[in-house]
Amino acid sequence: MNFSDKLNEIIVKNDSLLCVGLDPEQSKIPHHLKNSAYSLFEFNKAIIDATSDLAASYKPNSAFYEALGNKGIVELKMTCDYIKHKFPDMPIILDAKRADIGNTNEGYIKYAFEYLGADAITLNPYLGQEALSSFLKLEDKGCIILCKTSNRGAGEFQDLMVEGEPLYLKVAKKVYSDWNKNKNCLLVAGATYPNELKAIREAAGDMFLLVPGIGAQGGDIEKTIKAGIRSDKSGLIISASRSILYASGGEDFADKAREEAQKLRDEINKYRA
Amino acid sequence: MNFSDKLNEIIVKNDSLLCVGLDPEQSKIPHHLKNSAYSLFEFNKAIIDATSDLAASYKPNSAFYEALGNKGIVELKMTCDYIKHKFPDMPIILDAKRADIGNTNEGYIKYAFEYLGADAITLNPYLGQEALSSFLKLEDKGCIILCKTSNRGAGEFQDLMVEGEPLYLKVAKKVYSDWNKNKNCLLVAGATYPNELKAIREAAGDMFLLVPGIGAQGGDIEKTIKAGIRSDKSGLIISASRSILYASGGEDFADKAREEAQKLRDEINKYRA
Repeated sequence: MNFSDKLNEIIVKNDSLLCVGLDPEQSKIPHHLKNSAYSLFEFNKAIIDATSDLAASYKPNSAFYEALGNKGIVELKMTCDYIKHKFPDMPIILDAKRADIGNTNEGYIKYAFEYLGADAITLNPYLGQEALSSFLKLEDKGCIILCKTSNRGAGEFQDLMVEGEPLYLKVAKKVYSDWNKNKNCLLVAGATYPNELKAIREAAGDMFLLVPGIGAQGGDIEKTIKAGIRSDKSGLIISASRSILYASGGEDFADKAREEAQKLRDEINKYRA
Repeated sequence: MNFSDKLNEIIVKNDSLLCVGLDPEQSKIPHHLKNSAYSLFEFNKAIIDATSDLAASYKPNSAFYEALGNKGIVELKMTCDYIKHKFPDMPIILDAKRADIGNTNEGYIKYAFEYLGADAITLNPYLGQEALSSFLKLEDKGCIILCKTSNRGAGEFQDLMVEGEPLYLKVAKKVYSDWNKNKNCLLVAGATYPNELKAIREAAGDMFLLVPGIGAQGGDIEKTIKAGIRSDKSGLIISASRSILYASGGEDFADKAREEAQKLRDEINKYRA
């Protein structure tokens, strides 16, 4: 199934545009889980069970697992396996921001799609379409290309003017017109830059946009929705991690995560309506 | 020790600018190793033992190990541990082309430098200096920033003109003037683009350049040296992977890898002289 179709189905089913970032840090995991043999997985499992009817995707960031070496990779796989078996209609986005040349990308493809079984991966555009062609030819996997990232210093290169427009917009237009032949591309547009998000929406037709930066990073939900929503009231994947995962640091962390996810989903839906 | 100092010492000791890329693929590993429990590591170990007096660094690309999931990560760690214990003066470059925002990079830092014990990592500049500051502040670790990559389609964004010069040159100048405050930055410049390599050398002062693209990718050694060598006949890390690793597919693979590494080192030194 095409990644956008999978997204569309869960968005309708859960009436949600919320993506829950699964970015566990050992230092922030509640004390009562820390002695578990697989504490990252146990933490994720509780978060997933508490939010599976509120989320429209889960997005583990590979960095948080790589931090623990092979042990962390095992826990990332356990997390993906759990989602796939218990909630098979839930899309898994591997946030990895990868990009390499030619045959090297095959290793990342095996990691993301064969080993972990993710449905989509985030990719960095700097090496160009030709470098990423191994990803782009995978019709049933989502290729989520960094366009305007949410960080404070994102503009250092992304805002440089090229041929009369900023680089991030050039990236958006190239992905929309050239890279997306298999209708499997999406773009990353940070909620911390609503004007740029609006420009990307205008350049990117009906492509899905992955929007990080609400919650801990301070992006505004109303501005995000107004800038990026499609005419069908969809087309956005709005991601939050820390504000949900660490809503409480105690034994009630999963309940509090559910409350925060529900609050975010409902606030998104308020402006979506 | 500063990464450039470590590089300088091994360059003098082994009279070499050659970096051996440790990019093993299970399908290409000699038959007699395939049944080993840790065939990637056994392959790498033989390559390392055969080339340790000819190389000026080893560069495993994380993608080839991630392809095998946690098992591959174990073999990558075994490889790095082997180099560090048997050849402690040999620099290890983790080719990972990472970049994320803020605290997320801490995960990659733990992976590269704490878990694997690498000396340097390749990084993608698209998110800007602020995003990569967690790396850039590590005074004793090398930050090798992608500038002009070796792939055929590298120019799609890297050659776009910004403020009167191509983006890759803007990246080179920013890294040289702003990012390199701790004297720990290097740049990637593909051997397949000698004119651009020359422009990067002129923009980057005495910074080390990591040059992939000779060997299987077709970059010319003479043009590479003439374009990129510093006045002290150093300043380049010239990387080759497939041409060395798969010089033979038989039981003599390590001997043939040594012959190929020696040929490359000597050809590099011929033009360096």
